Amino acid sequence: MSNIRPDDRRPIGAEPVSAPPELPAIQDETRPLLSARFRRIRSVTGQLAARLTAEDQLVQAGPEVSPTKWHLAHTSWFLERFVLERFIPAYRAFDDRFGHLFGAARQPAGNPLPEVMRGLLSRPSAEDVMRWRDHVNAAVTRLIDELPTAQWPAAARRIELGLHHEQKHQELILVDIKKAFWCNPLRPAYQPGTLAPLSAAPGLGWFGHDGGLRDIGHDGGGFALDIEGPRHRVHLEPFRLATRLTTCAEYFEFIEDGGYRTPAHWTPDGWRAVRAGGWTAPAYWFKRGGDWHHFTLTGTRLVDGEEPVTHVSWYEAAAFARWAGKRLPTEAEWEVVADGRRRTGNLLEYGRLHPAVAVAAGEDGPWQLYGDAWEWTASPLTPYPRGRASDLSIGCYEGPPPAGHISLRGGSALTPGDMIRATYRAGLPPATRRHMAGIRLAEDA
Amino acid sequence: MSNIRPDDRRPIGAEPVSAPPELPAIQDETRPLLSARFRRIRSVTGQLAARLTAEDQLVQAGPEVSPTKWHLAHTSWFLERFVLERFIPAYRAFDDRFGHLFGAARQPAGNPLPEVMRGLLSRPSAEDVMRWRDHVNAAVTRLIDELPTAQWPAAARRIELGLHHEQKHQELILVDIKKAFWCNPLRPAYQPGTLAPLSAAPGLGWFGHDGGLRDIGHDGGGFALDIEGPRHRVHLEPFRLATRLTTCAEYFEFIEDGGYRTPAHWTPDGWRAVRAGGWTAPAYWFKRGGDWHHFTLTGTRLVDGEEPVTHVSWYEAAAFARWAGKRLPTEAEWEVVADGRRRTGNLLEYGRLHPAVAVAAGEDGPWQLYGDAWEWTASPLTPYPRGRASDLSIGCYEGPPPAGHISLRGGSALTPGDMIRATYRAGLPPATRRHMAGIRLAEDA
Amino acid sequence: MSNIRPDDRRPIGAEPVSAPPELPAIQDETRPLLSARFRRIRSVTGQLAARLTAEDQLVQAGPEVSPTKWHLAHTSWFLERFVLERFIPAYRAFDDRFGHLFGAARQPAGNPLPEVMRGLLSRPSAEDVMRWRDHVNAAVTRLIDELPTAQWPAAARRIELGLHHEQKHQELILVDIKKAFWCNPLRPAYQPGTLAPLSAAPGLGWFGHDGGLRDIGHDGGGFALDIEGPRHRVHLEPFRLATRLTTCAEYFEFIEDGGYRTPAHWTPDGWRAVRAGGWTAPAYWFKRGGDWHHFTLTGTRLVDGEEPVTHVSWYEAAAFARWAGKRLPTEAEWEVVADGRRRTGNLLEYGRLHPAVAVAAGEDGPWQLYGDAWEWTASPLTPYPRGRASDLSIGCYEGPPPAGHISLRGGSALTPGDMIRATYRAGLPPATRRHMAGIRLAEDA
Amino acid sequence: MSNIRPDDRRPIGAEPVSAPPELPAIQDETRPLLSARFRRIRSVTGQLAARLTAEDQLVQAGPEVSPTKWHLAHTSWFLERFVLERFIPAYRAFDDRFGHLFGAARQPAGNPLPEVMRGLLSRPSAEDVMRWRDHVNAAVTRLIDELPTAQWPAAARRIELGLHHEQKHQELILVDIKKAFWCNPLRPAYQPGTLAPLSAAPGLGWFGHDGGLRDIGHDGGGFALDIEGPRHRVHLEPFRLATRLTTCAEYFEFIEDGGYRTPAHWTPDGWRAVRAGGWTAPAYWFKRGGDWHHFTLTGTRLVDGEEPVTHVSWYEAAAFARWAGKRLPTEAEWEVVADGRRRTGNLLEYGRLHPAVAVAAGEDGPWQLYGDAWEWTASPLTPYPRGRASDLSIGCYEGPPPAGHISLRGGSALTPGDMIRATYRAGLPPATRRHMAGIRLAEDA
Repeated sequence: MSNIRPDDRRPIGAEPVSAPPELPAIQDETRPLLSARFRRIRSVTGQLAARLTAEDQLVQAGPEVSPTKWHLAHTSWFLERFVLERFIPAYRAFDDRFGHLFGAARQPAGNPLPEVMRGLLSRPSAEDVMRWRDHVNAAVTRLIDELPTAQWPAAARRIELGLHHEQKHQELILVDIKKAFWCNPLRPAYQPGTLAPLSAAPGLGWFGHDGGLRDIGHDGGGFALDIEGPRHRVHLEPFRLATRLTTCAEYFEFIEDGGYRTPAHWTPDGWRAVRAGGWTAPAYWFKRGGDWHHFTLTGTRLVDGEEPVTHVSWYEAAAFARWAGKRLPTEAEWEVVADGRRRTGNLLEYGRLHPAVAVAAGEDGPWQLYGDAWEWTASPLTPYPRGRASDLSIGCYEGPPPAGHISLRGGSALTPGDMIRATYRAGLPPATRRHMAGIRLAEDA
Repeated sequence: MSNIRPDDRRPIGAEPVSAPPELPAIQDETRPLLSARFRRIRSVTGQLAARLTAEDQLVQAGPEVSPTKWHLAHTSWFLERFVLERFIPAYRAFDDRFGHLFGAARQPAGNPLPEVMRGLLSRPSAEDVMRWRDHVNAAVTRLIDELPTAQWPAAARRIELGLHHEQKHQELILVDIKKAFWCNPLRPAYQPGTLAPLSAAPGLGWFGHDGGLRDIGHDGGGFALDIEGPRHRVHLEPFRLATRLTTCAEYFEFIEDGGYRTPAHWTPDGWRAVRAGGWTAPAYWFKRGGDWHHFTLTGTRLVDGEEPVTHVSWYEAAAFARWAGKRLPTEAEWEVVADGRRRTGNLLEYGRLHPAVAVAAGEDGPWQLYGDAWEWTASPLTPYPRGRASDLSIGCYEGPPPAGHISLRGGSALTPGDMIRATYRAGLPPATRRHMAGIRLAEDA
Repeated sequence: MSNIRPDDRRPIGAEPVSAPPELPAIQDETRPLLSARFRRIRSVTGQLAARLTAEDQLVQAGPEVSPTKWHLAHTSWFLERFVLERFIPAYRAFDDRFGHLFGAARQPAGNPLPEVMRGLLSRPSAEDVMRWRDHVNAAVTRLIDELPTAQWPAAARRIELGLHHEQKHQELILVDIKKAFWCNPLRPAYQPGTLAPLSAAPGLGWFGHDGGLRDIGHDGGGFALDIEGPRHRVHLEPFRLATRLTTCAEYFEFIEDGGYRTPAHWTPDGWRAVRAGGWTAPAYWFKRGGDWHHFTLTGTRLVDGEEPVTHVSWYEAAAFARWAGKRLPTEAEWEVVADGRRRTGNLLEYGRLHPAVAVAAGEDGPWQLYGDAWEWTASPLTPYPRGRASDLSIGCYEGPPPAGHISLRGGSALTPGDMIRATYRAGLPPATRRHMAGIRLAEDA
Repeated sequence: MSNIRPDDRRPIGAEPVSAPPELPAIQDETRPLLSARFRRIRSVTGQLAARLTAEDQLVQAGPEVSPTKWHLAHTSWFLERFVLERFIPAYRAFDDRFGHLFGAARQPAGNPLPEVMRGLLSRPSAEDVMRWRDHVNAAVTRLIDELPTAQWPAAARRIELGLHHEQKHQELILVDIKKAFWCNPLRPAYQPGTLAPLSAAPGLGWFGHDGGLRDIGHDGGGFALDIEGPRHRVHLEPFRLATRLTTCAEYFEFIEDGGYRTPAHWTPDGWRAVRAGGWTAPAYWFKRGGDWHHFTLTGTRLVDGEEPVTHVSWYEAAAFARWAGKRLPTEAEWEVVADGRRRTGNLLEYGRLHPAVAVAAGEDGPWQLYGDAWEWTASPLTPYPRGRASDLSIGCYEGPPPAGHISLRGGSALTPGDMIRATYRAGLPPATRRHMAGIRLAEDA
């Protein structure tokens, strides 16, 4: 049973919210099923934007984030370039100037608009961008219906990639509008209502694992990104994972104990980040009248100590763990525990758009593996052994991972449920606090 | 007669365009006249914005420029704070959070929003900002009608100041939207139509002046900014002013002769600016297919060599003059020539929004003293002898002038006609190319 | 009689210190006299460096300052390039790689070493640079003796320019080593001994002047820089100059009264400089145990309230004047008062290397016009009417003055006495605190 | 037999150069042996500095490098603080101001001098710093002789750590003076002579390994840094290592093939580094007359295509490998191959101070595992499983490794031979080109 009260649930998308479904593998999906899923996922993006005015959709609150309108347009560009132009020889781009405006920053050819200028694009209008989306939706839908069988498997993979890409940008729309509204002194709320306080979190327990020789990584059944595979063998020492995410109350103690003022907890680069950023608490936290408040997509409120802490950087996660006498799990440790468990949790479809208090459901944990908060691991994101060279030609996010990105696992309250899986590896720079990322502790057994 | 063709004229504001009127001094103006002028000028601002979408009005194309919406709001804030709150004890601000958002960057108290964040203010909406304007307009109009006589002179001065401020921001709306649209690769035009080529410019002549002991500066009759006065005596050597502004064709020669590659033409800081900015031509110019084009408020077109060159920095103006074996005029030289001449020219009301070719009208020049292009002088903007300490309490633009600003004279094609006069001193940093500023040469006689 | 005690006097150079002589005009000087003066001035530079180790001479404490060794070499380069190579056809540079290393940053040709890299030049060694100096000295001395008469006037002007340049760099050696030693936590003293406290400063009086039509600028008799002329007519309103420089005690009051925390005292750019630099007092001041100390070329000591305040920027000088209800003098005001007065004061030759307390000598002031501290004026440094185009071909400091530099007058305790005169105009950016510059107040009469 | 010619060998240190000895474990070493080693290693540092003038020793050619004098002083500080002050209660620091000047940038307490200011420390003089070294050497030598037995093991570990630290800074002295001399347009050579061309490199072969379950990491016998242990099990897929380092000739091909202009070879952050740095070749390379030259510690010369390429960043190493259709080895792969092989190679003691051509000695490779060039691996530097928390109290280099540092293995021609071992892990940021780091390719078997 969930303790999320009905009024906190604001379903997003047409799916019933209670069960982020275990997805069938891509090859099992018939064309009608993919067509339906395509329409649903594309429609969710539109729904996320529909709560915003055209002006809201233009705001770019920093060089590393993008306006909603840009996300809406960029995902159409992706489908146009890597699906429609690829599989429909006669396809004509909706507007051939849009590739320059909304293409990936790292297009192998072309001269993309500098990322910092995305917030200047008052033209095309939000309305024109939605027209483009409709145009692309119709074209892809027809392609699904009409493409000759011989081309279908390749196209289906590309459409799946496009949907994954779409869902990734759904999450980015939400984290980026959160920052945009945070930067506005009026602090508007993205969604109406209030986030009611939930019950208390269960005490912190430890879930043990024997380690040994294990297999991790995607085995090639169903859709996955290149970076998730191939499945391969790793040797693990026995270890324990915390049964739930670190709470705000636990993170308070770190703050109160001078965590942000003690260099010994931090890596040298983390300490530089603390000083350069003037960090004294997670992003979106601020003190008012002696109490910590934070800004959420539902507006400003008191921090609830029982909820998982989020919007911390890897530096903060690692410093907290060191302060606590623990460590972060490696991504292999996380995956061998998550492997085979039900993919369920406080994900985008629940509509809370904020982490929820852990619930000790009818098992002995660990809980919150999926949803609530991305979990920073101890592992830099590197290709797996025998990982095949990623295909740069498909745009914006496949390719060799940047040096120094850290692997995160499990998705957050902003992650679409059918985007996440046990093998899914997100990668972020250690200093970023843009995402709804939190902390699960680990220790040697 | 002007050679500006009818179809290039797009009148802005309710006034007949042909005669930027010689304004009566402020004390002569009765309340109804000021009320009418107030409504007219405020309405022009709204008309300038009405050509833009709400999205356009949000774009901030750099830290030193502001979104249209901000200009619209800021001018209301000025009236609310320095007129309404001052003279109506019971006045309640339309929204007391707006002062923080739209106040001057240099408010003596308060903690104004950093200028770079103006483009993030999707809220309040463009619509709300217009409602604010209406609210303020109604309140000021009533104040004009109803204020007790004892307070009227002080209030009238403040309202005049508010109108001057309003008109200054009208020009800024135009220069800032020009940059915003320039930064958008789609290069939208602010106004429809085309800028038809005009006739050839008259040959460059020289207008002589004997110099000697002369008086310059505002004499206190009618409204003027503190920095324009007091009237005082200066001693001038005999000199000559060019009869018209420097044309694009003349500036071409400088470019072709390696002007941007020859350090000897430039001051040391100017040369640094050339290299840091990668300057090879005025702002908004670019080469395509071997020809110089430029971007105007009416869209992109070939540069017309007969038109005055604009959007040059002082560094470029001074380097051009040095290359030409001439110099820039001092502001005193400019003023003694302009003093007493008719204030007429290609100003905002003509609606061309772009400099026009000089016309050798029925006198021997100099022409184009008013309108077309602000004229960079050789004079840093410093207070005049016995200039009274400016009143910082009235906000954003009075106060000691920054070190190193240069005085410009005469207004441009974007300057409202009744804002400019012979004594008017604009001040800009020598590196800026934001404004429609050009060059008039001078030489010793 | 001076109140500078004998033990504070550390004569520099071979001249008797008591009387910085009224120099004969250049054309009256015979070759032997110029030869003697050349040898004396060049030798002073060497004496200034002789107090430093080779390591000290290499330190560059910021991009805008230079190592002592660089100054020693650069002045030789100047003579080699603009005197020896110009007048001796067969002259071979001592080392033809040195022009690249030690030439002016603004050489019209060539690709000079970036200024920030001057502190990296461990080679050539300090010893080699002194050998170069000796070589150049010998060559110039022989040139003075042997040059054919026809070329003599041109060469003499160039040598004078080289000597002026040499003396300018003597002052720079001292201000730059002061910063270098300040940046070293060991805070070494440039010269031994202590700066004994002097008697109290006379009360602040006001010296009146009637203004009117006056002539200022150099009249062409004797050596002067181009920027000092031509002599020309200005019209001045009646004014008063403070009889002495502003003291540290007076400046304390400004600090105590929140001067550095009150934006209304500052120009907008000045206020930005205060915040960006974290300024709370003049450069080289710091608080220890509740008392203001400062760092001098004789080491660290308590600030003496009776001494003139120095190492303030123009922003601070102007803000102080505004706070005091006064203003800075224009450079014309300064010059008409200084014109014809004896050039005497606490200049480099006194050896104090620090401002001294004003002495109310047997006249009614103003005192301290020369020496102690450069005096910031209200005047940006611009060419005078009919000022001839400066000759860029002679290197590093003649040429169009940068926009925004402010004129300073009178020299400091680090300025060689025969470099300064009533018409001498130094120019510095308003934010710099590198120089021993202070404040003389003025007011309208 | 080595093909390094006798005249290229310039032995550094008192040891015979031919056999970097297999070091006995620390516990086997008696006090006299440690004492002798201490004196020898400390003396080598002095020898490295002795080729430089006091001026050379002061140069800091960038914020990330340090002057020689600073290295000389810092290593004394380390011994004073972590050995002498710890084990001799009555020990008085040589000069108690030096800790501030020469302490680690990351001291947990104290307020260390900003790294960028190290080049400003003309005082203390180079001579004083050598006196400090002598003082510390005498004190440590006496401590080794006289310390009570109970404290000996702890002290011995600290002295070993101090010697490791000393040797690490020996390498830094050389890489930093290389940059210093490179920045000087005179391009002085650190050591005299010429680097004669050697014979051709053997063709590139591949050394196979079966992978499987293997143990890596330090087993605790003898001295090692915390980061090297504990020994633990990893599972490896079969793989092949290149038999020698990548040569300059091979790297030429990458350059010629547009390697630096093709984003697809690079990670996104690597591509940004290429553009930001304007990279077109390894550091110290430049083109003159159509030929690639480079700067070495023996001066400027033509690049020898047979030598290993060095001074490449990880970005370049990884891009080269991707271009070549190969990859970099993981650090585990490198270590299982190196484990048990003789530690011999072109290390600091050979005195070449530059990589040498590979020699196919009497085995089938791989060659050059030790010396010549640090080898970039594919592995970010992270703590090993069950790695104990590092002790921050011992200063400057132990502590949690920064996020994003990459592990390098094997040492370079500048690495002291008894500092390196199979388990040694150096860590550097992926963008740095400061070190003599090169490329060994790997591939899946």
